[in-house]
Amino acid sequence: MKKEITIIGAGLVGSLLSIYLAKRGYKITMYERRPDMRKASISAGKSINLALSDRGIKALEEVGIMDEIKKIAIPMHGRQMHIADGNTPYLAYGQEGQFINSVSRGDLNKRLMDLAEAHGVTIHFNKKCNSIDWNNNSITFEDAETNEISVVHFELAFGSDGAYAASRHTHQMQHDRFQYSQYYIDFGYKELTIPPGENGEFLLDKHALHIWPRGNYMLIALPNTDASFTCTLFFPFEGRVSFKALDSREKVREFFDKTFTDASSLMPTLEEDFFQNPTSALVTVKCFPWVRDDKFALIGDAAHAIVPFFGQGMNCGFEDCSVLNSLVDKHEDNWELILQEYQYLRKPDADAIAELALNNFIEMRDKVADPKFLLQKKIEARFTAKYPDKWLPAYSQVTFSPHIRYSQALINGSRQEAIMQQVMTLPGIEEKWDSPEVEKMILDKLN
Amino acid sequence: MKKEITIIGAGLVGSLLSIYLAKRGYKITMYERRPDMRKASISAGKSINLALSDRGIKALEEVGIMDEIKKIAIPMHGRQMHIADGNTPYLAYGQEGQFINSVSRGDLNKRLMDLAEAHGVTIHFNKKCNSIDWNNNSITFEDAETNEISVVHFELAFGSDGAYAASRHTHQMQHDRFQYSQYYIDFGYKELTIPPGENGEFLLDKHALHIWPRGNYMLIALPNTDASFTCTLFFPFEGRVSFKALDSREKVREFFDKTFTDASSLMPTLEEDFFQNPTSALVTVKCFPWVRDDKFALIGDAAHAIVPFFGQGMNCGFEDCSVLNSLVDKHEDNWELILQEYQYLRKPDADAIAELALNNFIEMRDKVADPKFLLQKKIEARFTAKYPDKWLPAYSQVTFSPHIRYSQALINGSRQEAIMQQVMTLPGIEEKWDSPEVEKMILDKLN
Repeated sequence: MKKEITIIGAGLVGSLLSIYLAKRGYKITMYERRPDMRKASISAGKSINLALSDRGIKALEEVGIMDEIKKIAIPMHGRQMHIADGNTPYLAYGQEGQFINSVSRGDLNKRLMDLAEAHGVTIHFNKKCNSIDWNNNSITFEDAETNEISVVHFELAFGSDGAYAASRHTHQMQHDRFQYSQYYIDFGYKELTIPPGENGEFLLDKHALHIWPRGNYMLIALPNTDASFTCTLFFPFEGRVSFKALDSREKVREFFDKTFTDASSLMPTLEEDFFQNPTSALVTVKCFPWVRDDKFALIGDAAHAIVPFFGQGMNCGFEDCSVLNSLVDKHEDNWELILQEYQYLRKPDADAIAELALNNFIEMRDKVADPKFLLQKKIEARFTAKYPDKWLPAYSQVTFSPHIRYSQALINGSRQEAIMQQVMTLPGIEEKWDSPEVEKMILDKLN
Repeated sequence: MKKEITIIGAGLVGSLLSIYLAKRGYKITMYERRPDMRKASISAGKSINLALSDRGIKALEEVGIMDEIKKIAIPMHGRQMHIADGNTPYLAYGQEGQFINSVSRGDLNKRLMDLAEAHGVTIHFNKKCNSIDWNNNSITFEDAETNEISVVHFELAFGSDGAYAASRHTHQMQHDRFQYSQYYIDFGYKELTIPPGENGEFLLDKHALHIWPRGNYMLIALPNTDASFTCTLFFPFEGRVSFKALDSREKVREFFDKTFTDASSLMPTLEEDFFQNPTSALVTVKCFPWVRDDKFALIGDAAHAIVPFFGQGMNCGFEDCSVLNSLVDKHEDNWELILQEYQYLRKPDADAIAELALNNFIEMRDKVADPKFLLQKKIEARFTAKYPDKWLPAYSQVTFSPHIRYSQALINGSRQEAIMQQVMTLPGIEEKWDSPEVEKMILDKLN
């Protein structure tokens, strides 16, 4: 039986994984490319706020730290739209009492690292993975400060080093017939901010995720515990309306005043933020296989990077850890069996949430501004309330139902969407949306 | 205006491209990783025979060398199936007089190189592309024999270095948000041979492409000018029936005797071929963008490697050259415009033929053994003969109709397949396949 486990990357998923495995009695050593974010100040301006939801919560509960994380989480019960015409419709995420949680990536990561160390995990910082030697089971790290090279032997290693994982690259380079794709959308993102009000108050409703949907692009805002909001502009890289076109402070302010009027007035540092913060890309990475025999596995973004529009990147990575942990139970620490079942279980779910996340970009930036779409959601919500066993909206399946696999939620969601497409073509649907006729139509189509 | 053009890779597409451009007055220098195949003996056993068809022929005619190539081409008018039950149905590729051509990759490449040199093209052999410096417009080559490094300046360079192109790799590594995917099917291929008969005769019909469809896998054979056949086994890498499972000479012969009975008796060197020739992988590569400003473009497999099952890999690469040449006319040697239009024109067509090629594997290895499929083809052929303006089978669109874009053929083919799926469900279709009822049904659905 293996006794020691090496983890490459001490981000959210690597840190959580280390806690799961340390609790099982494994000796864990974790290597992180960056400096210790608890000591150094980490380069800011590139962290979409995270939406922690039930799949992630389930994992945090399993390792016993959800109570502590709750303290730094702000519940968001729905989407607060800010339509161009001034309307501000609101769309609840689920049933009464269901919500997702705005958390700071940095805060969450720091707590997970603290907890990992409290469980005996050793973390080495500034260690960049250069390559892995699969024959001799050794990893070469380069120290980011001293450039010193160290070679570390491993029994079992996990690559949790993110969307651009060095561990995946060295796995791929030495693997016959490796399946791989990287797909970038034509949109980038930039972090902006809405500070607290003069008296330290939230300047927007703190219990909602705010969206300014503008068809081809959007601005969103998530609350922070210090009463500020972290905003993210999702915007084309190039074109008439694009990051490239907004090339002066004046153009930026003018564009925001005109396009995101109610937000712009709350953003005193807009121009500084816009030109100081980086414009980042959004990539979907798919690959296979994720594992090598009984000695290596990719996990989290390193195995399946997705776009952020379903708020599931971290939740999916945390679920990887939870599933893996249950397989350690099932296969009694036989790592060849554990890793094989892990990848065959998780691959279709990772592919499914990748697709759902891409689809949700169109929903968020465009459809939520459409009264017809909002009506459709209202009909679905009404039907769900009446027939909870027959209809759970796809969003709820993904976000609030960890027992439903992503791959199943994708299938269920497609079927429901096909039914709703037909329902929405009913003449006069705006008037009779809550009629027995509509209800019966849905029931008939479900059978 | 540019005067000099550098081509990386003197394979089929690179060599043809050099002829097109040399004929326009450009000074062409071509760098090839391998030794000169006209002098050295090239590693054999890894060359699926090529099926030259109308798109490729059109390009060869444009540069004026089709008459010469005809001498080394053997017309194949249809597929000769060898079904497991001993039946040998035959399926014509197109109308009377339409055929594809079996040609040897080596012979064709040598003739193209000769012709390139005759047009003033300089070819350097044993030059491996290590990297490209996009700022200084220079390419670093390593001599495969002396390991000497040379740095070559370029004005405009083409990467025609195949599915695993080094030029694409260096393009990708230095490109933001590069779209890339490599997809391997679970099947490999191995070259085998049927030698000529005792009196130098062909042992199978020389004017057909022979297929032994076996559901999950297949053997094919294409004629050579020396009266031998080059056979290719497309077979799973792993599993109960797989390359891995056939691990002894006895097992190979026993399997062939049982599975490909009529072929096995014609293959005296089966065991030697099987264990001496490599097992090669089959990959689909997609990427974007293909070009950089006015100075670099990928072409052929380097831009869009596909699986060989539609016999279009080379034809598609030759069509790239033909399209590019027509754009040089159109844009009067303005290479920025030429390259931009080239990639936007060709990308959807390359994606389409990639999909068609993957689909055709299932058709060749499985469907062609199904009487229902053969009946469907018979119905289509009859309808085409009667209504040539209304229905051209997808295979013919791709193979015999260079004026139809691959992307259009894919769409047309899907539409036709949907119609035929319905036709084939008609009760008693086996009896009334040539009835006015069936004819009318197709006509109705077309309108």
